[in-house]
Amino acid sequence: MSTTAWTVDQWLRFHQESTPQNSYAALLQLVKSQQIAPADPAWISLASPDILEHQWKILQSKADKSQLPLYGVPIAVKDNIDAKGFATTAACPSFSYEPKEDATVVKLLKDQGAIVIGKTNLDQFATGLVGTRSPYGKTPCAFSPDHVSGGSSAGSANVVARGIVPLALGTDTAGSGRVPAALNNLIGLKPTKGVFSCSGVVPACRSLDCPSVFALNLGDAQLAFNILAKPDHSDEYSRPLPSNPLRAFGPKLRVAVPTQIDWFGETQNPEIYAKAVEAFKELGAEIVPLDFTPLLDLAKCLYEGTWVAERWAATREFLATNPPVEDLDPTVTAIIRGGAKHDAATSFEYEYKRQRLVKDFRASWHDLDLMLVPTCPLNPTFAQVEADPVKWNSIQGTWTNFVNLADLSALAIPAGFRPDGLPQGVTLLSDAFYDYALLDAANRVFKTLWKQPRTLGATEVLVGISDELHALPKPDLESSVKLAVVGAHLKGLPLHWQLQKVNAALLEKTTTSASYRLYALPQVGPVAKPGLRRVSEGGSEIEVEVYAVPTETFGQFIAMVPEPLGIGSVELASGEWVKSFICEEIGYSQKGTQDITELGGWRNHLAVKKSSTKKPF
Amino acid sequence: MSTTAWTVDQWLRFHQESTPQNSYAALLQLVKSQQIAPADPAWISLASPDILEHQWKILQSKADKSQLPLYGVPIAVKDNIDAKGFATTAACPSFSYEPKEDATVVKLLKDQGAIVIGKTNLDQFATGLVGTRSPYGKTPCAFSPDHVSGGSSAGSANVVARGIVPLALGTDTAGSGRVPAALNNLIGLKPTKGVFSCSGVVPACRSLDCPSVFALNLGDAQLAFNILAKPDHSDEYSRPLPSNPLRAFGPKLRVAVPTQIDWFGETQNPEIYAKAVEAFKELGAEIVPLDFTPLLDLAKCLYEGTWVAERWAATREFLATNPPVEDLDPTVTAIIRGGAKHDAATSFEYEYKRQRLVKDFRASWHDLDLMLVPTCPLNPTFAQVEADPVKWNSIQGTWTNFVNLADLSALAIPAGFRPDGLPQGVTLLSDAFYDYALLDAANRVFKTLWKQPRTLGATEVLVGISDELHALPKPDLESSVKLAVVGAHLKGLPLHWQLQKVNAALLEKTTTSASYRLYALPQVGPVAKPGLRRVSEGGSEIEVEVYAVPTETFGQFIAMVPEPLGIGSVELASGEWVKSFICEEIGYSQKGTQDITELGGWRNHLAVKKSSTKKPF
Repeated sequence: MSTTAWTVDQWLRFHQESTPQNSYAALLQLVKSQQIAPADPAWISLASPDILEHQWKILQSKADKSQLPLYGVPIAVKDNIDAKGFATTAACPSFSYEPKEDATVVKLLKDQGAIVIGKTNLDQFATGLVGTRSPYGKTPCAFSPDHVSGGSSAGSANVVARGIVPLALGTDTAGSGRVPAALNNLIGLKPTKGVFSCSGVVPACRSLDCPSVFALNLGDAQLAFNILAKPDHSDEYSRPLPSNPLRAFGPKLRVAVPTQIDWFGETQNPEIYAKAVEAFKELGAEIVPLDFTPLLDLAKCLYEGTWVAERWAATREFLATNPPVEDLDPTVTAIIRGGAKHDAATSFEYEYKRQRLVKDFRASWHDLDLMLVPTCPLNPTFAQVEADPVKWNSIQGTWTNFVNLADLSALAIPAGFRPDGLPQGVTLLSDAFYDYALLDAANRVFKTLWKQPRTLGATEVLVGISDELHALPKPDLESSVKLAVVGAHLKGLPLHWQLQKVNAALLEKTTTSASYRLYALPQVGPVAKPGLRRVSEGGSEIEVEVYAVPTETFGQFIAMVPEPLGIGSVELASGEWVKSFICEEIGYSQKGTQDITELGGWRNHLAVKKSSTKKPF
Repeated sequence: MSTTAWTVDQWLRFHQESTPQNSYAALLQLVKSQQIAPADPAWISLASPDILEHQWKILQSKADKSQLPLYGVPIAVKDNIDAKGFATTAACPSFSYEPKEDATVVKLLKDQGAIVIGKTNLDQFATGLVGTRSPYGKTPCAFSPDHVSGGSSAGSANVVARGIVPLALGTDTAGSGRVPAALNNLIGLKPTKGVFSCSGVVPACRSLDCPSVFALNLGDAQLAFNILAKPDHSDEYSRPLPSNPLRAFGPKLRVAVPTQIDWFGETQNPEIYAKAVEAFKELGAEIVPLDFTPLLDLAKCLYEGTWVAERWAATREFLATNPPVEDLDPTVTAIIRGGAKHDAATSFEYEYKRQRLVKDFRASWHDLDLMLVPTCPLNPTFAQVEADPVKWNSIQGTWTNFVNLADLSALAIPAGFRPDGLPQGVTLLSDAFYDYALLDAANRVFKTLWKQPRTLGATEVLVGISDELHALPKPDLESSVKLAVVGAHLKGLPLHWQLQKVNAALLEKTTTSASYRLYALPQVGPVAKPGLRRVSEGGSEIEVEVYAVPTETFGQFIAMVPEPLGIGSVELASGEWVKSFICEEIGYSQKGTQDITELGGWRNHLAVKKSSTKKPF
């Protein structure tokens, strides 16, 4: 039995149809089939049978295990993130320690049923975008033994791309969760800073670090996001998602693209990027050229400036112990030691510069929906990186280094294959907390970008369950207003966009109690509308859809409601009262009003009207 | 003619009733009556007749001059803020330069008619809370030649307290705008960080600096806030106020007070603080003890930590020129040079600590309305400060140092006089952007704190126009929904609090068009309500009040509207359509409904009902 390229859904189905014994055996077999570095540089350590069994037993002891969205799903964890039972090395043997607790992100995934099967290789101390800076070996991309996997989350991307696990945790300070996604044909989700906890993660630049997710498809990335987006008091940089995070941008996406892109002599990747821009155009998006100078300048600040002192802060105690020289990657050590030279005053001056550049960017951003940028300019070879370990690395960070400095959300997605068979990707960027809207935008553009089923990672397997997204988490009813809609706002009808615009979420399709009459009002303007009237007798049940409208956007919605309609309260069939469209008496008492109560709802009225208007032809 | 202790209103009235010649003469006379340091250590420079005349001529050339809220009002400016025509010294003679432009805050006040009559003394480079660290002399508080004015905005507070000008600009990084207010019986408004531009202000800690305002009364402080709260692209830390900033906290204030206060042996000031707590209790506020440990720890970080490196960053070029030793205050220079010793890594570590402490504070804050703290523990003498220049200074910062690090708004207010005749104050703190709500809370508590007219600054003049606030700036209609209310939400009626709760602002009192009938609905619950019905004939004009409800809070409001009422649209007498309460037919067609259209409105109905229910007695 091959589990290669199984997505989360496939693992869940397998476990459902299997016995616990066989399920466990499959996981054990999967681990046994793997080898750690140097045989396979992607893995630094693998779960021992004891550790695997321990995780399995805990999972079996859970009362709700059949409901868990990651029940028995194997995952990989970058080796700068604590997972109990595994040493945390950060790709430095003498830095290694045995964590007492899972990192918060590992714990959250395990709580939902995930099984950690191993820890993956990385550029040492997560310092690099190449995946070659590790005494555990240089990780290739899953498509070519001669090309780098990208870093720093090199191993996590590699093992997902090879279809060993459907999900892996990475980290992303400067691009470490995006560059390897591009070079391995994966989804790389870099959440808004602070939305995933960094508790239990070895710091790189603590003010900028983000755990990240690699997945074969969008749905799995979204599932991981649902689970991981939780505030955590133990991380001083943790921030909660807003109670009603934006679920989707509007129907016509407004997409910023750089006015200029330096491809550093590369000729194949520009084609892939151009194709992605076309895909957005085909989707009907408005493409807006944006001057990226402030953001590109910000990117340069990351390594030219003082943020590297955070890396020094994170490791100076360790480096003071004089670890064996063979444990230290010379490029990484040189970069980190460079962080020691800066003084605090200069560090503040770079912070002022950051504020300046972000302000300049904001002034030209004008609340567009998203930016579309290359994930990285190049697909470097090991030979190139060896010849100049810094140059290629820093080129690769052009479109990633600024993202956390500017507090943006990011989603790296596969965008196509080059003539040489290597994959490349693009990245969607937006404001903080727009992570769900980016997933939705990616889902939309995949339809025009890929057109036919795409292969998963470096496998031959086509997208099985597709890239469809899961249902979004239930809206927060504490901070929403329940609204029943009865007419042109119903799903698929002409004013439904008004609900989308205010980030409303469908809760249920139901009817009113049997105390209402429905009228087709004389049409004013382009859209026909009904009027709902509560009556003390002679009423009927009328079809409604109930939405959760975020409290903070309800005012935008009500501004769009014209007289004689209004928002009042309606009794549902269940007896619950919710907000609803109501109608003034002067509306339905007009000449030309038609009582359509007997049809049971507005949809039926439209159907009847349509068939009757067709008759003459 | 004495202009002593004239508030802004009094200056405006004087100018209205005077000729331009006499107006100018009064200002000229005022300047001539002043002397600069060392004769009067509060002033570093005064407007020359040329500079005064130049400002006056520009003012006279303005088309709208009669409408200007600061027409001809003399103001003082702390000498680390640029004002054209005056050198900016930051209290260091050899640092002095001639600015080419006004600082943004000076320009904004001048644009509204203010006349800068002089620049005031300060702790050198705004480094200090005592007002003694200046080669231009040690500024006493306006009540005693033996007691310090407090700093660093020592001169600005002193000249306002003496009644020379009604308004002065200070700066406040660590308390410099609040401590001198307490020691001089003044209002000291420290706005939310970024709300007043720092463009043209000599930096102290650029990431924390705020221009601030000293005023004799609350109304003048609020007026200055209205004028100064403007975003400014040229300041990288500038932040706009939200489009509908909170205007007031709820009717029952929730006030956090420290569980413990160290008074450093002082016995008179605790009495004044206790009286302020009592005043809030008398107002009906809920007093909630709060553990201030995280904030007090944060306060210590300001000088023990690396933020002092910002002062070094701001002055190291100047200090490298080897300025004459007599120009440099030795205490200030030692503090600033201390900023050179920190490395960037440590600076980041303090930033992590800041994040940790703010998060800990936030976890216990629970969205209370405001904190009530002493402004400063002591009223130090010159002798004390001379004996130990650092100790007394740092004690004075106990309740001020953490405020900008935690991104809070602050308002220092006079709270009483000690038996020795010296004043003391308390400070109200709240979340960022709650500046208006703090002014409103201060206005409310003054009624129970002072009970009778209080004296202005160090003068014998009693609060003339009183501490009443001005009308708040007009609400932003772009981000508001206009709502007509017709019943129990009218001002003074039982549900009016629902409008206050959602930060609504009254726009006008008017009537509907003559197309409505009004019904007293059968009473359900504690509050009687009317129903408004639009009719095609037989209608009448009905009294309404129109409010601007912020779009983002409208959802909170509508959640409180019970059936058969709803929010629809109503035509006003002007022909404008706005959102309004409407009523379902089933409401006013109930048995027991009373048609009260002829009374013209709900208020009249209540009056009639009241008089008729009284009759039997």
